[in-house]
Amino acid sequence: MSKLRVSNFTISLDGYGAGPDQSTENPLGVGGEELHDWFVGTRTFRETHGMEGGEQDSIDDKFARGGFDNIGAWIMGRNMFGPVRGPWPDESWRGWWGDDPPFHGAVFVLTHHPRAPLPMDGGTTFHFVDNGIESALDRAFEAAEGKDVLVGGGASTIQQYLRAGLIDEMHLAIVPKLLGSGERLFENVGTGLFEDYECADFVASQSALHARLVRRG
Amino acid sequence: MSKLRVSNFTISLDGYGAGPDQSTENPLGVGGEELHDWFVGTRTFRETHGMEGGEQDSIDDKFARGGFDNIGAWIMGRNMFGPVRGPWPDESWRGWWGDDPPFHGAVFVLTHHPRAPLPMDGGTTFHFVDNGIESALDRAFEAAEGKDVLVGGGASTIQQYLRAGLIDEMHLAIVPKLLGSGERLFENVGTGLFEDYECADFVASQSALHARLVRRG
Repeated sequence: MSKLRVSNFTISLDGYGAGPDQSTENPLGVGGEELHDWFVGTRTFRETHGMEGGEQDSIDDKFARGGFDNIGAWIMGRNMFGPVRGPWPDESWRGWWGDDPPFHGAVFVLTHHPRAPLPMDGGTTFHFVDNGIESALDRAFEAAEGKDVLVGGGASTIQQYLRAGLIDEMHLAIVPKLLGSGERLFENVGTGLFEDYECADFVASQSALHARLVRRG
Repeated sequence: MSKLRVSNFTISLDGYGAGPDQSTENPLGVGGEELHDWFVGTRTFRETHGMEGGEQDSIDDKFARGGFDNIGAWIMGRNMFGPVRGPWPDESWRGWWGDDPPFHGAVFVLTHHPRAPLPMDGGTTFHFVDNGIESALDRAFEAAEGKDVLVGGGASTIQQYLRAGLIDEMHLAIVPKLLGSGERLFENVGTGLFEDYECADFVASQSALHARLVRRG
């Protein structure tokens, strides 16, 4: 069975997945970039972003790599795709990731505003879905052809899928850093998550605690 | 210099220091007792509660033990002391801990309602402070005679001392468990904590991630 997964989603010790005041200069909000210090040093991150080197076989790399494993399509919120809000003024914004984004497959971007599909180099195509999270999920599972679908983020997109009871597995990284404000992950998700998930992995490197939550039996 | 410390304070993966519906049956709220699974198995916990055995020299025991080290007096919120709310109807509630509480020193209980000091076996005396957190802190430092003062909890008491900028060091345990609701630790603490604290320790056992936050330079 294909799964809907969250992976490599990083939160601060105080629970924030992004800092305050997200902008073009600070896509993850003030201080938010540092959440991913554990991630950018891994071989997996570097490979998926077209770079050489990086640590491998470490705890961090193991989880980073597992997060990309068997992923056939992606879903993300519009704010993860870019800083543009409201109707698309033109087609000029093409994501944060340059011409060859690290997805190499279909990416479904949740938005209230229609936009034509945007093919990129390296096999990535951004599809803009304006009729809800279930529709995006159906299309993503179809595109994934039996593989899993990854909800990349941000926090509010993950919250929507959690509220709808649609997420099968969630790998979180908690890092030794306070953000103080921003977008909290565990908010607006109802009160019953503890009944739905158990913690299957709980392992820390010096840079991140990796917790993998899986849906109970 | 004596410090004001928090130690062995445990939160769920989703950030709660207690579950919902705290009561006499569930002092830490529904599901909240399990937060301390990592703690009750340690030799330190067992020793301080008059029991033998328990694991020692483990990561968990090392942090548990460090949390009691050099503590000369305690501060706690009234809800940590007991389930009674409003004016004290009588003197019958004497804490959750039996005749010989594990504090063995002066404990200052924050309350809005006066009550006479309550001496217990084993050197513990509960003092009820109805004129504010600074007053409790002054009295606790005096009683500690050069040692540190521990803010035991709960979450809202820690929040008050954090907001006032009075906490020097905070050891948190994060456990592989969701609570879904209850009392969140990192709430109502302002947005500037990240400027005030850095993470000095970040180590996990299979049961808990231990993070020690210390005031910067």
